[in-house]
Amino acid sequence: MLGNSLMAGNRYFEDVSPGDQFPGGSVEVTEADCIAFATAYDPQPMHLDTEEARARFGGIIASGWHTAALVMRQVALARPLGDTEVLGMGVENLRWRQPVRPGDTLHVEMEITSTKPSESNPRYGIVTFLITTRNQRGETVMTHSPFCWVPRRPVP
Amino acid sequence: MLGNSLMAGNRYFEDVSPGDQFPGGSVEVTEADCIAFATAYDPQPMHLDTEEARARFGGIIASGWHTAALVMRQVALARPLGDTEVLGMGVENLRWRQPVRPGDTLHVEMEITSTKPSESNPRYGIVTFLITTRNQRGETVMTHSPFCWVPRRPVP
Repeated sequence: MLGNSLMAGNRYFEDVSPGDQFPGGSVEVTEADCIAFATAYDPQPMHLDTEEARARFGGIIASGWHTAALVMRQVALARPLGDTEVLGMGVENLRWRQPVRPGDTLHVEMEITSTKPSESNPRYGIVTFLITTRNQRGETVMTHSPFCWVPRRPVP
Repeated sequence: MLGNSLMAGNRYFEDVSPGDQFPGGSVEVTEADCIAFATAYDPQPMHLDTEEARARFGGIIASGWHTAALVMRQVALARPLGDTEVLGMGVENLRWRQPVRPGDTLHVEMEITSTKPSESNPRYGIVTFLITTRNQRGETVMTHSPFCWVPRRPVP
């Protein structure tokens, strides 16, 4: 366990329930970060500072994977389960609903939608979140449902 | 339309069918890139050069979102639809099946699994891909099914 234990504490599988909500804070999307991400990972004209981006989309739109990465940052910083080690297994229903552009501010909210014990490993449960990301106008830009391994509370 | 038209050509909705396969090339995962991505977007101990990563996982494991971004790069470079502008709508069934570590080489393969005309916009169809990412040992590390707007062939 690293840092901040006293502040955040640890929450285990037994400590969370469907309906639990966690604020994820906000992040501003910058043009430099959009272009750097797209150059490294999604080099398509609409995500780069190109004539096509300006002509077709009125400017750069962020890579959907960049938006997802920015949301992951907010989730990691919010630490909804404290210091407990949470391992992502996958994601259902990822939707990019509106374009994200430089200058937008993204607001992230998390809700637990299901919890179930793991059938294969008695030390873990599986927790599914619904993560909703909105822009500064309140428009939903992305939704997704990651599900994760969460340790069960250790028996003393 | 940008660059490379003569090489790649454009493929429209009418030009692709379920079962079409495209190679996505390979990419090596570097420790520096893993740490840079995790620092920016997924600052959890298992993804950073920490004692916890070494003790619990035998070293860094890549953020799942970093793996997804590296796969996106391979898809963007492979350009399965040539110069045609493809807009991601979302992803189904994203699964991180095995850890990805620095030094791994990822091999990406794409297959079209469904095509349907858009009900809301007659100028577009919706194409779903299955993308399978394997490591240098042939182990599947990630699978996902992005679906995208693809323009219909313009009427001359």
